Amino acid sequence: MTLSTTSRSTLTRLRERARTDRADLHAVLDAGLVCHLGLVRDGAPVVIPTGYGRIDDVVYVHGSTGAGWLRIEDGEPLCLTVTHVDGIVYARSVFHHSMNYRSAVVHGAARRVTDPAERLAALRAIVEQLSPGSWEHAREPDRRELAATAVLALDLAEASVKIRTGPPGDDDDDIAAGGRWAGVLPVRTVFGLPEPCPTLPPDAPTPVHVGDRWAG
Amino acid sequence: MTLSTTSRSTLTRLRERARTDRADLHAVLDAGLVCHLGLVRDGAPVVIPTGYGRIDDVVYVHGSTGAGWLRIEDGEPLCLTVTHVDGIVYARSVFHHSMNYRSAVVHGAARRVTDPAERLAALRAIVEQLSPGSWEHAREPDRRELAATAVLALDLAEASVKIRTGPPGDDDDDIAAGGRWAGVLPVRTVFGLPEPCPTLPPDAPTPVHVGDRWAG
Repeated sequence: MTLSTTSRSTLTRLRERARTDRADLHAVLDAGLVCHLGLVRDGAPVVIPTGYGRIDDVVYVHGSTGAGWLRIEDGEPLCLTVTHVDGIVYARSVFHHSMNYRSAVVHGAARRVTDPAERLAALRAIVEQLSPGSWEHAREPDRRELAATAVLALDLAEASVKIRTGPPGDDDDDIAAGGRWAGVLPVRTVFGLPEPCPTLPPDAPTPVHVGDRWAG
Repeated sequence: MTLSTTSRSTLTRLRERARTDRADLHAVLDAGLVCHLGLVRDGAPVVIPTGYGRIDDVVYVHGSTGAGWLRIEDGEPLCLTVTHVDGIVYARSVFHHSMNYRSAVVHGAARRVTDPAERLAALRAIVEQLSPGSWEHAREPDRRELAATAVLALDLAEASVKIRTGPPGDDDDDIAAGGRWAGVLPVRTVFGLPEPCPTLPPDAPTPVHVGDRWAG
């Protein structure tokens, strides 16, 4: 299955960087911790970082019902973007400096999620995206907490994925000239040593679903 | 000097996470590799990841003149957001799961940069943000490359900075109940071992401005 392309999801340049497989889209989304959600307020764009989660071909975000940016109407246009920086691309020329990256850009209309079962599944997906294993380990939301939480859905119907990998694309003249370094400095997101909450008993063991994420 | 607050840059909740010092804004911007730039197309938001650079209280982005998203008019409203995820906050309750992060959100009107000196300074700032030392090491842009590059400026006049640090904010009942882990899993962005371009001579040394970024 390939992604639908519209004028705004069809890349105007560097088409070789665009992927159309839904598996690519899912992979980019599933690897992220934070998305950047775009909305329009008084004709101007607003871009907010927030957590998210995916179930099949729907992506969910949540927030406090008191948060201004989540006062979003049903059908309001949104853009949800997830980006991973994988490397800094050093070229012989300033012009060909670049980044290796994977990004997904999803366009769609907001849908306020009201069905209790879908709301709960969405919240689980959002929590599990950030901290796999937490839904089982932690206390589930109670009625009051659920009432304070707004959940929005965005269909993955219109989306584009862009991926750049590999070395710089220097001009032949610059390669031939020599004397300048070119290559890729990999960029990675890693987890540090878990820091227990000061209110935990000193001998509280770190559970596997947390400790195993530490890179060592 | 503090940042101006407007209705859209005044946080509607969690005000304790908002900072108003310009130094905080500069620090969050200066630590980033990529920003998410929001613009409005046909009434809908579009959020694009891209590099950027800062000079004093102006932030710059650039792109190919052939890139659709950079066909931005003078005065067009933009939003530029930079986010660093610093930690995953595990709480006893799903509800209090969170992230530690630093984010800067800049609202403003696009200014197309046409002055040659400012254009060059902006490009230098953008390249140095991504790869410090590259402007000196690499070949500077020639006339053709400059002509193919659009540069946009955004004043840092209207901006907000939001920072969360520290352990989770669990409810007393959940803390007293015990049996569940809580704490922070630090998240860091690190650089890997530089990967020389295959077209480099095998004995080409890695320059200090690249090699010193490797975490080891």
